[in-house]
Amino acid sequence: MKSHTEYLWFHTDQRRQYIRVTEQVQEAVSKSGIQEGMVLVSAMHITAGVFVNDDEPGFREDLDQMLESLAPFGQDYQHHQTGEDNGDAHLKNILVHHQVVIPITEGKLDLGPWQQVFYAEFDGRRRKRVVIKAIGD
Amino acid sequence: MKSHTEYLWFHTDQRRQYIRVTEQVQEAVSKSGIQEGMVLVSAMHITAGVFVNDDEPGFREDLDQMLESLAPFGQDYQHHQTGEDNGDAHLKNILVHHQVVIPITEGKLDLGPWQQVFYAEFDGRRRKRVVIKAIGD
Amino acid sequence: MKSHTEYLWFHTDQRRQYIRVTEQVQEAVSKSGIQEGMVLVSAMHITAGVFVNDDEPGFREDLDQMLESLAPFGQDYQHHQTGEDNGDAHLKNILVHHQVVIPITEGKLDLGPWQQVFYAEFDGRRRKRVVIKAIGD
Repeated sequence: MKSHTEYLWFHTDQRRQYIRVTEQVQEAVSKSGIQEGMVLVSAMHITAGVFVNDDEPGFREDLDQMLESLAPFGQDYQHHQTGEDNGDAHLKNILVHHQVVIPITEGKLDLGPWQQVFYAEFDGRRRKRVVIKAIGD
Repeated sequence: MKSHTEYLWFHTDQRRQYIRVTEQVQEAVSKSGIQEGMVLVSAMHITAGVFVNDDEPGFREDLDQMLESLAPFGQDYQHHQTGEDNGDAHLKNILVHHQVVIPITEGKLDLGPWQQVFYAEFDGRRRKRVVIKAIGD
Repeated sequence: MKSHTEYLWFHTDQRRQYIRVTEQVQEAVSKSGIQEGMVLVSAMHITAGVFVNDDEPGFREDLDQMLESLAPFGQDYQHHQTGEDNGDAHLKNILVHHQVVIPITEGKLDLGPWQQVFYAEFDGRRRKRVVIKAIGD
């Protein structure tokens, strides 16, 4: 079995931002030499997510709006008693999920035609990380 | 390490439909010859999901109703400026998540007594795919 | 390829309860002898979840409150026509997701500084299980 580990760093301008990472994940898989296996793409922070969906700006606005309606920024969360102001970002992390697993087939990400991998930042403007872990043969 | 890849095709009658696939996933695992490992079951579309829950029609209605209340069909989504009418289905894909990983133990799906694997179609009436990827020994 | 399987049992005092299991998952990984791979932590019940987030009591209250607002206990769910009263717990399982996959790097859970693994019980006061499956080299 082969394995390969890589970390992506992000430092967004905005508090909430959605960044396509499909190409970086494919590069990590290519470096690994794995032909058949799986690659995990997982946020290492509790206020960010990783998802697979369309690379379409309208959808990203819809997603952002739904998340804001379910877990609005600036609400009086219990978590804020710690001095933090990012309670909404913790909840958005849960709703979106913080990770995806992508099958590797013949050395490529085995995604459908419209599937793209995104990093979802919910509390940005500081350095944060995603781990990529590929295993297979 | 062994690996096995299979694709399931769906073409539902209804826009939203929930289809049990546990048996097909177990068959793929049996064909793989894997005794110990993991199998990924992942929608290849951005308007469908895969989940594990009870095979109980009442629950499926409750799920459908909750998803409709959080991301209603027919709302004026930004995504619709592309000419599409399935903005709700993209959001339901995010809420339900598009994949599950099932442990394989002694050649069987290591599921609890009530756990069944479902394909969740949110924008059907056309051909769509799920990838099954098993890895292990 | 090595693999290791373990089951954690839970029997909570309360209907809804959130229990940190990071240490137990790390112990299972240590026992496995795996240095590079992945470990799946997955609820075996349809009324429980597994998530990764902060070990902070305020956040857990915020999460519980959000889940209660999206899928309230005691509502008149279709699932209750079976005689059950836990329709809310099935929906909470979907929203939180029932599993996480954690990368194993140099024999350790490759988590960010604040990431802890939690079992989320939504219909407790009886014996329930989580499966831990590690694979790698």
